Amino acid sequence: MTQERPFDLLNSVIGKKVIIRLKSSMSIRGTVKSFDAHMNVVLENAEELEDGELKAKLGTLLLRGGNIIFVSPV
Amino acid sequence: MTQERPFDLLNSVIGKKVIIRLKSSMSIRGTVKSFDAHMNVVLENAEELEDGELKAKLGTLLLRGGNIIFVSPV
Amino acid sequence: MTQERPFDLLNSVIGKKVIIRLKSSMSIRGTVKSFDAHMNVVLENAEELEDGELKAKLGTLLLRGGNIIFVSPV
Amino acid sequence: MTQERPFDLLNSVIGKKVIIRLKSSMSIRGTVKSFDAHMNVVLENAEELEDGELKAKLGTLLLRGGNIIFVSPV
Amino acid sequence: MTQERPFDLLNSVIGKKVIIRLKSSMSIRGTVKSFDAHMNVVLENAEELEDGELKAKLGTLLLRGGNIIFVSPV
Amino acid sequence: MTQERPFDLLNSVIGKKVIIRLKSSMSIRGTVKSFDAHMNVVLENAEELEDGELKAKLGTLLLRGGNIIFVSPV
Amino acid sequence: MTQERPFDLLNSVIGKKVIIRLKSSMSIRGTVKSFDAHMNVVLENAEELEDGELKAKLGTLLLRGGNIIFVSPV
Repeated sequence: MTQERPFDLLNSVIGKKVIIRLKSSMSIRGTVKSFDAHMNVVLENAEELEDGELKAKLGTLLLRGGNIIFVSPV
Repeated sequence: MTQERPFDLLNSVIGKKVIIRLKSSMSIRGTVKSFDAHMNVVLENAEELEDGELKAKLGTLLLRGGNIIFVSPV
Repeated sequence: MTQERPFDLLNSVIGKKVIIRLKSSMSIRGTVKSFDAHMNVVLENAEELEDGELKAKLGTLLLRGGNIIFVSPV
Repeated sequence: MTQERPFDLLNSVIGKKVIIRLKSSMSIRGTVKSFDAHMNVVLENAEELEDGELKAKLGTLLLRGGNIIFVSPV
Repeated sequence: MTQERPFDLLNSVIGKKVIIRLKSSMSIRGTVKSFDAHMNVVLENAEELEDGELKAKLGTLLLRGGNIIFVSPV
Repeated sequence: MTQERPFDLLNSVIGKKVIIRLKSSMSIRGTVKSFDAHMNVVLENAEELEDGELKAKLGTLLLRGGNIIFVSPV
Repeated sequence: MTQERPFDLLNSVIGKKVIIRLKSSMSIRGTVKSFDAHMNVVLENAEELEDGELKAKLGTLLLRGGNIIFVSPV
């Protein structure tokens, strides 16, 4: 195992914007409020994106970690 | 881990309306009565939505957490 | 966690009719005889529904919880 | 939890005929010889059914529980 | 639980021929050399079948149990 | 349980060539360097095969066990 | 079990470039920053590839291990 760990990235983006790519070929952009060990994430000001364009404003949401492909800081 | 945790969001919406997006490209709107650690949720006055429009009234239901993509307060 | 819990709903429908929506876009209506912690459910007088119409009479059956999207009292 | 439990149904059909609906839209009819806690089931004189009609005779088989939607006594 | 158990069937076919139906609508016929608690199976002289006809000779192989729908002695 | 076990096959092919069939209808041929209890495998000189023909040279790779249908010594 | 283990490969590519093939027929190329026992990986300077060609620059990202088919050093 490495000393630096993947979840350090999530810790570093609390209060910051990320794009989350989901298995259902959907992406969500929002500000990370909290996360847990299952990668469940609460986002604020979340927006659904399609081909990088805004599709819908979703507000605050709790996203189940199991749907995530990747989380990337914007 | 963060001190605030994702399930705090579920606690804060007991008795309030949420929209739940499911893996089967279906959305359900309803009032949260209870939830557990698997994200199983009981909704009251639940409604099935299609493209944001009411498709069917479902009444009270117990939704298995494993089907959920996200939960968002309305 | 909430004090009331989702499985309370299952307890309250023992001996009563429910509709169960399955992942395979199939619905089953029947009377709940028993359930367990995996949401495995035994139904009596079960009927398969398609678009709300009766498709087949299935009698008594043991349904694996993992196939369930939601359980709703009729 | 209820006092009667779903697996009681499996216990009651040892040596009797059941129809098992599988996730792969396939049904199997046969006589239950044994089962375990994962719902793995051994059937004897098993037959594959398609739209309720006999498609193939399969003889004895061990069916993995994870493929099962429901088990119903004939 | 029953006293006889499903894995007894696997024990009884060591050194014998079985057909294994897989989730990927593929069947494999071969002689069982060993198995474990996950239903991982080593087959010898394995053959891939399509509609009951020989499609390819595969020799010895280790099959992951999670892909199996059923195992049936020939 | 049998005394000989499926993972014995993996032990016996360290340093030897195997073909690995994956769930995504893709096959990989390569020399086994190591494996673990999840059937994660490191292959060297790995090649992607399509209908038995070489499609791409992949070099060294770590393959997640969960994607494997079977492993077969060449 | 072998003495050398698959995760040794991940340890050896910290700070180096890899291509990661995902289940969703998508590939990502990037420099490994960290990983954990679930094969969650943080990549830097990540790029999405389609048929080996650059499709999008993704920057830093945390990739969930469950989506990975294989990891290959470039």
